[in-house]
Amino acid sequence: MQNSRSKPCSCPSLKMREVASMYFTMVAAFLVILVVALQGSVSRQSDFPYKVPLDPEGLLELSWNVSYPEQAVHFQLLIRDLQFGLLFGMSDRGEFENADLAVLWSDGHNSYFGDAWSDAKGQLHMDSQQDYQLLSARRAPEGLYLLFRRAFSTCDPKDYLIEDGTVHLIYGILEKPVRSLQAINISALHGGLQRVQLLKPNISIPELPRDMKTMEITAPDVVIPSQETTYWCYMAELPEGFPKHHIIMYEPVVTAGNEALVHHMEVFQCAAEFDSFPQYNGPCDSKMKPDRLNYCRHVLAAWAMGAQAFYYPEEAGLAFGGPGSSRYLRLEIHYHNPLVFKGRRDSSGIRLYYTATLRPHDAGIMELGLVYTPVMAIPPGEDNFILTGYCTDKCTQLALPTAGIRIFASQLHTHLAGRKVVTVLAREGREQQVVNADRHYSPHFQEIRMLKEVVAVFPGDELITTCTYNTEDRSRATVGGFGILEEMCVNYVHYYPQTQLELCKSAVDPGYLHRYFNLVNRFNDEEICMCPQVSVPQQFYSIPWNTFNRDVLKSLYDFAPISMHCNKSSAVRFPGEWEKQPLPSITERLREPSPRCPPSPGPQPAAPVPLNLGQLRR
Amino acid sequence: MQNSRSKPCSCPSLKMREVASMYFTMVAAFLVILVVALQGSVSRQSDFPYKVPLDPEGLLELSWNVSYPEQAVHFQLLIRDLQFGLLFGMSDRGEFENADLAVLWSDGHNSYFGDAWSDAKGQLHMDSQQDYQLLSARRAPEGLYLLFRRAFSTCDPKDYLIEDGTVHLIYGILEKPVRSLQAINISALHGGLQRVQLLKPNISIPELPRDMKTMEITAPDVVIPSQETTYWCYMAELPEGFPKHHIIMYEPVVTAGNEALVHHMEVFQCAAEFDSFPQYNGPCDSKMKPDRLNYCRHVLAAWAMGAQAFYYPEEAGLAFGGPGSSRYLRLEIHYHNPLVFKGRRDSSGIRLYYTATLRPHDAGIMELGLVYTPVMAIPPGEDNFILTGYCTDKCTQLALPTAGIRIFASQLHTHLAGRKVVTVLAREGREQQVVNADRHYSPHFQEIRMLKEVVAVFPGDELITTCTYNTEDRSRATVGGFGILEEMCVNYVHYYPQTQLELCKSAVDPGYLHRYFNLVNRFNDEEICMCPQVSVPQQFYSIPWNTFNRDVLKSLYDFAPISMHCNKSSAVRFPGEWEKQPLPSITERLREPSPRCPPSPGPQPAAPVPLNLGQLRR
Repeated sequence: MQNSRSKPCSCPSLKMREVASMYFTMVAAFLVILVVALQGSVSRQSDFPYKVPLDPEGLLELSWNVSYPEQAVHFQLLIRDLQFGLLFGMSDRGEFENADLAVLWSDGHNSYFGDAWSDAKGQLHMDSQQDYQLLSARRAPEGLYLLFRRAFSTCDPKDYLIEDGTVHLIYGILEKPVRSLQAINISALHGGLQRVQLLKPNISIPELPRDMKTMEITAPDVVIPSQETTYWCYMAELPEGFPKHHIIMYEPVVTAGNEALVHHMEVFQCAAEFDSFPQYNGPCDSKMKPDRLNYCRHVLAAWAMGAQAFYYPEEAGLAFGGPGSSRYLRLEIHYHNPLVFKGRRDSSGIRLYYTATLRPHDAGIMELGLVYTPVMAIPPGEDNFILTGYCTDKCTQLALPTAGIRIFASQLHTHLAGRKVVTVLAREGREQQVVNADRHYSPHFQEIRMLKEVVAVFPGDELITTCTYNTEDRSRATVGGFGILEEMCVNYVHYYPQTQLELCKSAVDPGYLHRYFNLVNRFNDEEICMCPQVSVPQQFYSIPWNTFNRDVLKSLYDFAPISMHCNKSSAVRFPGEWEKQPLPSITERLREPSPRCPPSPGPQPAAPVPLNLGQLRR
Repeated sequence: MQNSRSKPCSCPSLKMREVASMYFTMVAAFLVILVVALQGSVSRQSDFPYKVPLDPEGLLELSWNVSYPEQAVHFQLLIRDLQFGLLFGMSDRGEFENADLAVLWSDGHNSYFGDAWSDAKGQLHMDSQQDYQLLSARRAPEGLYLLFRRAFSTCDPKDYLIEDGTVHLIYGILEKPVRSLQAINISALHGGLQRVQLLKPNISIPELPRDMKTMEITAPDVVIPSQETTYWCYMAELPEGFPKHHIIMYEPVVTAGNEALVHHMEVFQCAAEFDSFPQYNGPCDSKMKPDRLNYCRHVLAAWAMGAQAFYYPEEAGLAFGGPGSSRYLRLEIHYHNPLVFKGRRDSSGIRLYYTATLRPHDAGIMELGLVYTPVMAIPPGEDNFILTGYCTDKCTQLALPTAGIRIFASQLHTHLAGRKVVTVLAREGREQQVVNADRHYSPHFQEIRMLKEVVAVFPGDELITTCTYNTEDRSRATVGGFGILEEMCVNYVHYYPQTQLELCKSAVDPGYLHRYFNLVNRFNDEEICMCPQVSVPQQFYSIPWNTFNRDVLKSLYDFAPISMHCNKSSAVRFPGEWEKQPLPSITERLREPSPRCPPSPGPQPAAPVPLNLGQLRR
């Protein structure tokens, strides 16, 4: 299948530098030869429901689809202003070292495509297995489209394993011709990272009612501040006397041209105990922001870059309006403006779809994980320290209905040291299934994610949430708490039918922690004041950290009884004894799924694919 | 390629039961059709240097070769008395559950061959990837020869990964026709296990000198006792005035017909401090055995079933004879006679090849690992508890020559709870290479093994030996010591040139262990007498074991300073400070090698291969 074209590019309005560079592109003749036969069905590749800009200028636009039967992702990369090539790939946390890369490069005459990897020093190598399979390269007025396919798992140890949860995509632009792949100097590249959930769940969209209405909660023509990071706060209000409705869907409303700047958005409902809230439209961290806005924390909707519309399951909707519910809403928008554009105007926000015809169930949100308390701490200098929060059988036995609840979505949450979050459902000591797992979690990318499959939780079940932290850059212990340098380990699970259980979390028993401080004191021959009048954070800060004190703290967390918070609201516990509870004992763990290797036709040989794209630049 | 024959079997002398069953075999007509084309070169498959009987009757005989370029083993299995099929395979420790099996079965009319696996309940399943590749099935007068090939690593998670060190082979005999693979009831099979080192090193044999002489140290026509296990001791003597020689090679001498009974043999040299030793020829555990024989412990030669001749590297030989060396040798033979044959006579032993033309270097033996002391203990109920013994940089700095030493062979040693032994060489805190690793170690199979490559150790290097233990069947702690129910963690490394360093081993500092006992006492609110006058084993026995006490003991062993034994002989230390030494800190670990998957042509489809062997039995 061959395809040749010879068209100049049509340029959207661009800065001088860009226009100049486009000029050179225009004078080149383009002869595109597709050297790789199209594989798979055309419909699969032509239909890319997910889209995200890679760079802050929006010159690189990634669209993709996910085929679960094939266990593969099809990528369509639009390169609006191709220079001498491009790197695109994935790595554990967005670094350019130890990355798995698809590379398009030109030596000034010929162009090539290949699957490569970078070593720990950032040196590029051709992959022995070519797992980024080029399907087509196509010129269009707006730029070059590259279509390629990648299996989730390739069984090549140099390749990234595409898993559920966050994927750190990286890109780099080749601004000069390169002799060979090996000659590319990664550290000199203009590049960046973009976080997305690649493996979107394959969920059928529920039927929407006829009486559905929409409401847009959007920023009122805000001028985006010319700084890298802004959290913008805007207060909105429901009409007076607005009765109870169900939100059944919501979607982003992003101002055209700002797709690369609007990083994430959330709509919060304010606390019902206040009759009114002040108006506000400004940065969330401004000193002018009224304190009362801190009481607007109940999430109604959350969206992050790359996410699509969020649909509630057809049996449930999120209640808003009506008595006992605040009329006041807070819209929060995270603008990410690393190129410090000035004067950009934005009216982005979220469009709520709601109905007065209430669905059978109200949806609820429950907090799983760890209580916000300093007794749960992470020693400094750790690269993967694990803390675990429990929702015990005793609590679910008491608080859940006999028919159980259905968890359909989840939002993971930690502060800056968080690296992984996993919640697992266990029954009678045996792990049953993963509720939600993000092994490349980033605190900078917190979405509400639909689950691939709804998880049923019954009375007596246990929900175990483990968070992995990295404190390599810290010199003192990180304790649990609300501060940005303190830590949390939370999974907000969205479920139905709503119950009274708002919070099912744990922390180590403080008496056992006190024994630990004593033990450390005695074992280490140190004269540290571990007196009870000293606060827990102070005691943690004064520990002389070494592998023994670290390991014994781990052993303590894996052994000591827990204090359970099995609460109706953040302060009201269900009746019962919740102190010094035994740790759930897990006798059977879930097996790590063994990755499926690509089915035949297998990967291609380890040679770059030549592409005739004409001369890219002169 | 087809091949048909019709021959009756020729029977060797067998017992009545066997003769009767052979009769039925004789009346069947055999038509052998090779349905699988021969793959690979004929020379590779026809040359099987390694051979071992699988069963105690010697009816199943396995030969094999190893191709490192292909990363595959070719097996030739001789089935002397085929009934309705055979299972042959590998599993972690010789169990029939979770095993990887090649199965030949007959439904009474047709025969099939397939790659199967057994689940945790012993149920057989056809493998989705057929990695035991049948190359040929051939009738011969002595029985049926099956030739098949298996890659070391198949990347099929159901398959066994063939690694260096011990492999537990299993076999099972089908005595009745079976409808299908799934119908095979593993628990009802007549079967067993055989331990071998499958991946023999590929070593070129050094040239042997012209003046080489041989000496056989063999049992003098012993009647093998009619009991399952016998350790037979026989005292031999070198001629008076026998001068210093170098042993440069040795090999087993096994009496024909006893190949399945002689399990392992060792020749020990007696201690030089005694002028004479009594004669003895009888069981090693007899009350009649003179106590002085316990002073014959210096290993000169060791052989175990499946092992071949042992060659010293051409630069070195093992010194024996001459002044300062005892004339007395003890031969120890382990007879394994599970079928309790009576009256079998045996004259097996070891043939030493030695020369008076001394080679440039004497070979030496050095003990690495843990000191025999109760301070190193394993809690009860553990499935993989790890203890580590260190040979520190300080000791090698002092004791090794500037040019270093070359380790060419290794014998791993633990008592009954040992499951894995690994020694790693580290330099400046970075692991360099594995000296010897056995991840399926069995205390019942202790060979001297040639290393695949000679390991050079220089002053300042560290040798770290880790042993993994299983104490699931024990109810109290297992302490270090000489007793069979106490534990050891030792690697006897064979090296040249010989140095004064005989022992480079460690144990935890006893003062830190005392702090541990105090800590356990205080943390657990128990009133156990952890007074210093109580012995260390008694203190370990009185610990109320739980995960915390277990984990803190692990943390202690990973943290506390060590007492080094850097000794010229078992009692004489090199001068220096050897107490409270810092643990070697390892900043860079060796990566687990990622297994190579089989190269194309890939595995065969998941269907059994039909074999026309005629009707096997009626």
